[in-house]
Amino acid sequence: MNRTLNEKIEKNLGGEIEIKGWIKARRDMGKIVFLDLRDRSGLIQVVVVPSELDNESKKVVKELRPEYALQIKGQVNERGEKQKNPDIVNGNVEVLAKEIKVLSKAETLPYELGTDMHMDTYLDNLPLNLRSEKSRAIFKIQATLVQGFRNHLNNNDFVEFQCPKIVGGATEGGANVFTLDYFGGKAYLAQSPQFYKQKMVGVYERVYTLGKVYRAESHDTNRHLSEYTSLDFEMGFINDYSEVMDMMYDNLKKMFATVNEDCAKEMKILNAEKPNLPKKYPVMTLKQVQEILEEEYNEEGASKEPDLEPHQEELIGRYVKEKFNSDILFVTHYPKEKRPVYTMPDPENPDLTLSFDVLFRGTEIVTGGQRIHDYEMLKKNMKEFGLNPQDFEYYLMAFKYGMPPEGGIGMGLERLTWRLLGLDNIKQATLFPRDRVRIDLPLTKIDRKD
Amino acid sequence: MNRTLNEKIEKNLGGEIEIKGWIKARRDMGKIVFLDLRDRSGLIQVVVVPSELDNESKKVVKELRPEYALQIKGQVNERGEKQKNPDIVNGNVEVLAKEIKVLSKAETLPYELGTDMHMDTYLDNLPLNLRSEKSRAIFKIQATLVQGFRNHLNNNDFVEFQCPKIVGGATEGGANVFTLDYFGGKAYLAQSPQFYKQKMVGVYERVYTLGKVYRAESHDTNRHLSEYTSLDFEMGFINDYSEVMDMMYDNLKKMFATVNEDCAKEMKILNAEKPNLPKKYPVMTLKQVQEILEEEYNEEGASKEPDLEPHQEELIGRYVKEKFNSDILFVTHYPKEKRPVYTMPDPENPDLTLSFDVLFRGTEIVTGGQRIHDYEMLKKNMKEFGLNPQDFEYYLMAFKYGMPPEGGIGMGLERLTWRLLGLDNIKQATLFPRDRVRIDLPLTKIDRKD
Repeated sequence: MNRTLNEKIEKNLGGEIEIKGWIKARRDMGKIVFLDLRDRSGLIQVVVVPSELDNESKKVVKELRPEYALQIKGQVNERGEKQKNPDIVNGNVEVLAKEIKVLSKAETLPYELGTDMHMDTYLDNLPLNLRSEKSRAIFKIQATLVQGFRNHLNNNDFVEFQCPKIVGGATEGGANVFTLDYFGGKAYLAQSPQFYKQKMVGVYERVYTLGKVYRAESHDTNRHLSEYTSLDFEMGFINDYSEVMDMMYDNLKKMFATVNEDCAKEMKILNAEKPNLPKKYPVMTLKQVQEILEEEYNEEGASKEPDLEPHQEELIGRYVKEKFNSDILFVTHYPKEKRPVYTMPDPENPDLTLSFDVLFRGTEIVTGGQRIHDYEMLKKNMKEFGLNPQDFEYYLMAFKYGMPPEGGIGMGLERLTWRLLGLDNIKQATLFPRDRVRIDLPLTKIDRKD
Repeated sequence: MNRTLNEKIEKNLGGEIEIKGWIKARRDMGKIVFLDLRDRSGLIQVVVVPSELDNESKKVVKELRPEYALQIKGQVNERGEKQKNPDIVNGNVEVLAKEIKVLSKAETLPYELGTDMHMDTYLDNLPLNLRSEKSRAIFKIQATLVQGFRNHLNNNDFVEFQCPKIVGGATEGGANVFTLDYFGGKAYLAQSPQFYKQKMVGVYERVYTLGKVYRAESHDTNRHLSEYTSLDFEMGFINDYSEVMDMMYDNLKKMFATVNEDCAKEMKILNAEKPNLPKKYPVMTLKQVQEILEEEYNEEGASKEPDLEPHQEELIGRYVKEKFNSDILFVTHYPKEKRPVYTMPDPENPDLTLSFDVLFRGTEIVTGGQRIHDYEMLKKNMKEFGLNPQDFEYYLMAFKYGMPPEGGIGMGLERLTWRLLGLDNIKQATLFPRDRVRIDLPLTKIDRKD
């Protein structure tokens, strides 16, 4: 007999089926036992009446508990009128078990799945905790965001590429880099796919890549990770940086639309608010943002700083929400000193750059901008930044042979998920988070001998 | 005026358009200059007649050479009858330039794009060489394979997840691991997503992930890389390993079908042969393969070995091609000693395992099998392998709480691309390959100071 997924059970009303899944809950009602069985498609209530079972199955009923993996043959019945619940999947049907086979046992759970607990306890037990309804919803939504990202870019002629993560010699910036033993010498873990995606603009005009990037962050806050997923695109032959912003905004809208379409159930489980993205995105220069902060929020001296503090991002996020009913704000024209060497200066004010950040609900989730595409200008800028162009020979080769005006963005997937779902800590939106003190388990608990 | 992509030019016959792209070739015919302009969608012939140009544009004509990035306004004309070539894109039309703007200059190329050269020279100049028609076709096909992989799995209820690459403590095997400085201690680069995808089976039943994995290979052959892209899926509640093989085969067929559909032009450029995949895949045990090798190819003593040599894989690849007209062979039942600790033993012969390799055109591209899902059995097997289960506490947690029978595969994307396209060296199918002696540039040329 072929397995029937839980979501297809109702179609088999009156028939015999075989189902497989994990026990989510067991309820004993005298001689009758009710099991909620979870499979990838949903839940079903299984009714276990010993007299209906074969002899082998009778023996196992007693030991059944949450997370046992079972294979059950049984009959699909309508629930009694009082037990019907049309608001849930399979709320009108149940399966009367005829044969129960234990595929895999589970020890007694240390707590009920989904219980609130300290972040450290949550992470220590992640392989178990990820099975909770909440975690499954979070990472289903994350997978769907990624699909939306790709689909939008595929539809706009972008070509995906697989970006290397081991990098040699000179990197973007010296700080926060992980060092690696590489056949007796040193190598580094990439902080971004920046240099590679720019090279690939020379190949395909429009490219994207998606993968892990690395920051040896010495902070241990609710927003820092050693390893996170970066969604990156880069596009050539642009007129100016506003084309990159337009593409970015359309991309984000597509990602959210895909979630709204495919993950309504998961959004509801998480009680997550749908983001509000106006037809045209609000955009302000950093200067304008800082003036608002000074005038409306008493953030004295804000406009003297080259960047926004996290609490200032929150304030301006609240401002655009109230003023424009927007969860999004594009902030442009960051000063040259705060942006990487490849950032295009503003021709009208060379101390500023044609760069932008995207704030989503008061948190920076995207960094982007137009890049310097002119070979001579890029070399000159490197020297101004105290870098030696000879160390960047391989990168510069893409510019030596005709690089069109181009720009792009990098988006942090975990940050986006975190803010979209209103979670307390970015680690709840990260599969197997790594930080200063933890790789799966706390570093103090790992035997890190060679 | 908005840019028109080259592929849409023919629709604008008689009209004025703006196009952008790189010069692929320049041909001087007395006073007339012909430019082949490449954009992401294809080529167009641009006719440059100085008398038709404005004064600014006249000045730049002389310097134009391959890889200059241009913006051209001009008129779409029908080609003269003798110059028509209906077999190529835009073979019936050309653009008469009215205005030429240089977006970015290019130095004189060291050689014509696509020239055959030594592998080291090719890699040293990769940012330029990737622009050749051949390279662009290779990595377009690679991106399409990846799309086919994902689409097939999405359609079969698999959930994608982002797998960490920094791992702590004990890894699958001690050899060939890259070591990392991690906040004063050590960490490692993952050799596969194996442990994580198994944990995720407990969460979603069916999962896949795609990303870089690392092998500190001391070999420098045409098939070894330090960093490659692994396509992985893992599925729970299987009846046995043949379900994994079926899913794998369907997946591969879908990948190839997507390439045939979307990359006919690229396959032609590379003169690549469409793979032949019969309706039902041929499958042999390792033992059967070895007996054929002994009987048909004089490979004496083959059946005494626990694995196949690369040249033996080639021989049996040729055999199944001749015998079954198949580019594919599933080889099963590798001995326990050659398979990882988590591999399910064959209940009929515990020295063998329910594992398989997929040979494609005589090269192993996939490794897969059924895993041990029983907690006690897995711990026991670890001890037999000389491992301490306590070192695997975090991994084992997924099995402690009910892991259904499950299995999966890992596929090397670059190997698959390499064999599909009949390339000489796997490095031609790898974007920015890393090996023992090279990270972009030869390690001897990189200044690897901290």
